Amino acid sequence: MTTNNTTSNWKDKLHEIIYEADTPAGKLFDVVLLIFIIASIVLVMLESVKTIDARYHNILYYGEWVVTILFSLEYIARIITVRKPWKYIFSFYGIIDFLSTIPMYLSFILAGSHALVALRALRLLRVFRILKLARYLGASNQLASAIKASRAKIAVFLFAVLIAAVIFGTIMYLVEGEANGFTNIPKSVYWCIVTLTTVGFGDIAPQTPLGQLIATIIMILGYGIIAVPTGIVSAEYTKASDDGDKKFSDEEHKHIKDLNLNTQSCANCLAESHQDGAQYCYKCGFELHHD
Amino acid sequence: MTTNNTTSNWKDKLHEIIYEADTPAGKLFDVVLLIFIIASIVLVMLESVKTIDARYHNILYYGEWVVTILFSLEYIARIITVRKPWKYIFSFYGIIDFLSTIPMYLSFILAGSHALVALRALRLLRVFRILKLARYLGASNQLASAIKASRAKIAVFLFAVLIAAVIFGTIMYLVEGEANGFTNIPKSVYWCIVTLTTVGFGDIAPQTPLGQLIATIIMILGYGIIAVPTGIVSAEYTKASDDGDKKFSDEEHKHIKDLNLNTQSCANCLAESHQDGAQYCYKCGFELHHD
Amino acid sequence: MTTNNTTSNWKDKLHEIIYEADTPAGKLFDVVLLIFIIASIVLVMLESVKTIDARYHNILYYGEWVVTILFSLEYIARIITVRKPWKYIFSFYGIIDFLSTIPMYLSFILAGSHALVALRALRLLRVFRILKLARYLGASNQLASAIKASRAKIAVFLFAVLIAAVIFGTIMYLVEGEANGFTNIPKSVYWCIVTLTTVGFGDIAPQTPLGQLIATIIMILGYGIIAVPTGIVSAEYTKASDDGDKKFSDEEHKHIKDLNLNTQSCANCLAESHQDGAQYCYKCGFELHHD
Amino acid sequence: MTTNNTTSNWKDKLHEIIYEADTPAGKLFDVVLLIFIIASIVLVMLESVKTIDARYHNILYYGEWVVTILFSLEYIARIITVRKPWKYIFSFYGIIDFLSTIPMYLSFILAGSHALVALRALRLLRVFRILKLARYLGASNQLASAIKASRAKIAVFLFAVLIAAVIFGTIMYLVEGEANGFTNIPKSVYWCIVTLTTVGFGDIAPQTPLGQLIATIIMILGYGIIAVPTGIVSAEYTKASDDGDKKFSDEEHKHIKDLNLNTQSCANCLAESHQDGAQYCYKCGFELHHD
Repeated sequence: MTTNNTTSNWKDKLHEIIYEADTPAGKLFDVVLLIFIIASIVLVMLESVKTIDARYHNILYYGEWVVTILFSLEYIARIITVRKPWKYIFSFYGIIDFLSTIPMYLSFILAGSHALVALRALRLLRVFRILKLARYLGASNQLASAIKASRAKIAVFLFAVLIAAVIFGTIMYLVEGEANGFTNIPKSVYWCIVTLTTVGFGDIAPQTPLGQLIATIIMILGYGIIAVPTGIVSAEYTKASDDGDKKFSDEEHKHIKDLNLNTQSCANCLAESHQDGAQYCYKCGFELHHD
Repeated sequence: MTTNNTTSNWKDKLHEIIYEADTPAGKLFDVVLLIFIIASIVLVMLESVKTIDARYHNILYYGEWVVTILFSLEYIARIITVRKPWKYIFSFYGIIDFLSTIPMYLSFILAGSHALVALRALRLLRVFRILKLARYLGASNQLASAIKASRAKIAVFLFAVLIAAVIFGTIMYLVEGEANGFTNIPKSVYWCIVTLTTVGFGDIAPQTPLGQLIATIIMILGYGIIAVPTGIVSAEYTKASDDGDKKFSDEEHKHIKDLNLNTQSCANCLAESHQDGAQYCYKCGFELHHD
Repeated sequence: MTTNNTTSNWKDKLHEIIYEADTPAGKLFDVVLLIFIIASIVLVMLESVKTIDARYHNILYYGEWVVTILFSLEYIARIITVRKPWKYIFSFYGIIDFLSTIPMYLSFILAGSHALVALRALRLLRVFRILKLARYLGASNQLASAIKASRAKIAVFLFAVLIAAVIFGTIMYLVEGEANGFTNIPKSVYWCIVTLTTVGFGDIAPQTPLGQLIATIIMILGYGIIAVPTGIVSAEYTKASDDGDKKFSDEEHKHIKDLNLNTQSCANCLAESHQDGAQYCYKCGFELHHD
Repeated sequence: MTTNNTTSNWKDKLHEIIYEADTPAGKLFDVVLLIFIIASIVLVMLESVKTIDARYHNILYYGEWVVTILFSLEYIARIITVRKPWKYIFSFYGIIDFLSTIPMYLSFILAGSHALVALRALRLLRVFRILKLARYLGASNQLASAIKASRAKIAVFLFAVLIAAVIFGTIMYLVEGEANGFTNIPKSVYWCIVTLTTVGFGDIAPQTPLGQLIATIIMILGYGIIAVPTGIVSAEYTKASDDGDKKFSDEEHKHIKDLNLNTQSCANCLAESHQDGAQYCYKCGFELHHD
């Protein structure tokens, strides 16, 4: 029983370091992990630059192995310390962690596969966990509720924009024709969206007077259209913000401001957002770690 | 009289399927129709891509015929089941349905006519009916009333933008001249709108220092101008949204949220938006279909 | 005395037609004038298009003379019918009317002068008078007061943008150099404004990695910056709109909506915006025209 | 003691002219300084234009020396008249003043150094002091507090945009490849930000159908995204504006409007924003200058 207890204590200690950010060790772990994640992204970027890869190929290669081994150890540690490993493995962050770790191992099987680069870029998603960004956004959920409230309207709106793009794209294809770069309707629709969103690459541009007239109409339409989603989000945000002011007391506001949130996650069910002095998980009743 | 009754019942059944979305059959019909509309748009797009058309010309051709025949059958069914066919035929959707159906038949008369492609793109407008988008927008008519309220102001505003574009366009034509791409005033005005709307294709760009100085003024003007329609829509939307909150009770809000609207349209006068338990058309008194 | 009276009556009649839009004759005069102004602008535009000018030179030339003579007659009529001609001549619209009329006469003195084209484009400003746009904007002066209230802040803001453009422009000139199109600092500042305003012509674009990094910072800055003037106008407009709601009663609102404003302008002092049943000018006491 | 007093009086006089804008002499000093700052910026710009530099090199060179000597004199005068020179020297404006003065002297040591140009561009920052822009912005601190309140949210938002840019950039690098201009991931990420911010230079543009499809998604995303910071600033500004209305009385508002602020800065501790009739510095108790 003592051994079991020791193991449990050792596991608890590790769980505390990995999953929580309250203790100095937990904070240090998060900072180190953040540095390695950003380092791994920088490695992926530098490797893609021909001149740098040619000169420092070995350094980049060994750097990638260092990152891979560290991520592997972290992944194993996360599985060991959690009471329900399968729940972690199939959680959103569990899958991201797994995909962040495997590219280097896969490179033995799928030699020279280009697509592994994309897999390595996914590591960036891990940043969200460490910075507790998702939670921060959740705490000040005015923005989230504003976007949620305006979601349906923006969807209808974007759908209308797409329909306009298809119809105007077809017209431009007929007016300008293949000689002026509008080689087919999909390309013409692509140009139309480039114009409606005011991006305007200029790789394709109308050459005929009639085409330029229609382009003018599309642009002014896009100009007027840009006002709509902004107006919606702005109004919904104001409303959500007003509601938020009423919902939260001043003390709670201070709380949110200080971002003094309990950063523990339950070792049993992975639930987060426990109250500050919480002793047991509010979801499964499992005992939380005490300072 | 029995025959008449049977015919009437058969017609009523079909009317229910085609014009309503309450019953399983009506929903299935809508989904199938939606798939065919999108398929027909994809066909038009793919046909315009040279490489795809060369390889799969026959498949695309037969596909177009399948779509045309199905649309023809639907059009005929809609005319038969409605009590006042002429009202349907000359209604907005009646004309769209007709134009969506005829391109393939017209291709026999006007062989190889390019413009038929545009006619086929109009099919996209039919999507609105099935998704009941117009009605959905009508239900949450905050956006509609916001745009309506700010319509006059945005029109005055756009008119002012156009006048600015003509005046600045003329100045740029004089400053830059034909050598730098500003070959005539209409083209120069076109460039001016491209710049004011912050699209900026770059197919024409000022080359002289003076031209670039004026372009800078136009751009900063455009930057300041973009704030105006956004501000108008945003403010009007907030107002409409506030009014809406007062106008509708909580129960009504739930109603709107659930989108649990009666999707019937009267078989006699085509009127829509009947109340949920309505037995007779609120417009012409004709008996509605009962579940 | 009778002659004097007849002359006065004849002048009053003409004044009514030219300066007012209440009577059928006055409305007809405005519509005809509007058509000629737009026609004259279209003439200027078409003349600049080489291919059209080559083919229809004579028609365009005679058309321009027709417009010029009509504008001359209108200008003389306006001077004759107004009691204080000098006040009209040196008023804003008086100067615009004069400049709109003279280009063709000037072309005899300054043969082939290119700059006259710009003078002719000024005619567009006359549209504002006929459409009574300025007055309409004045009636619903929410927008005007919103822009007025936020003017100082937007000025400070634009000034800050300009300073940022000069500093970033200088940095980009040093980083990219002449080889990549940043030939001198003014051009580099011009590019910086093109980027900050999200226009992005692409005639000049950073080529070095460091230049592209700085460009990224400028773009994200511009992205964040675009939110500021919009936010200001939006908030000020909401405030102005709220104040407006309080200031005007429902009846007054109807008034504004119907745009049923007295379109007379005093024959003596040119004052406008008289009340609907006004008998005398509110400014100089001169008797107004009665229906 | 008399000498001491005379020196003190002479210094006080100079301090009043340089550091204050209440007296005619102080105002004149500010206007002259403003002209020289703008002149020095124009000199830097013109020098970079090859054709102008070739023709007027001597004039520009002597002009630069005139500006440098005047700035040197001003810098020395500022140090002399202030009671605590070191505090001024290491203050923000003290450093800016020093850096604005030295480029010409440095050019003897670092002959032909290009980077000195950037140093000279920093002079523009001095404009802020004279126009008392910072203080003006401080007075109407609605905008400042709106930006401050939304700072955290905008930071999170921009961070999310950057992550999206890296992920989409990597995907575009894989899809388009080096042949179409996406030579490496950093460049691809740069393109992604160019597109997301709707700048759209067009120096790099997707060529493959799949790349154009992904570009469409990025653009529509950017279109939706642009609404978020605008909505935040707009809502926060409205709130700050409402709070400001409550906080300030009408009289105070008049005060702010007139911008009739005490422009003195304490000769001892450099503190600004003294009350209008203040006799002693509110910070260090040092006697202020009396009119």
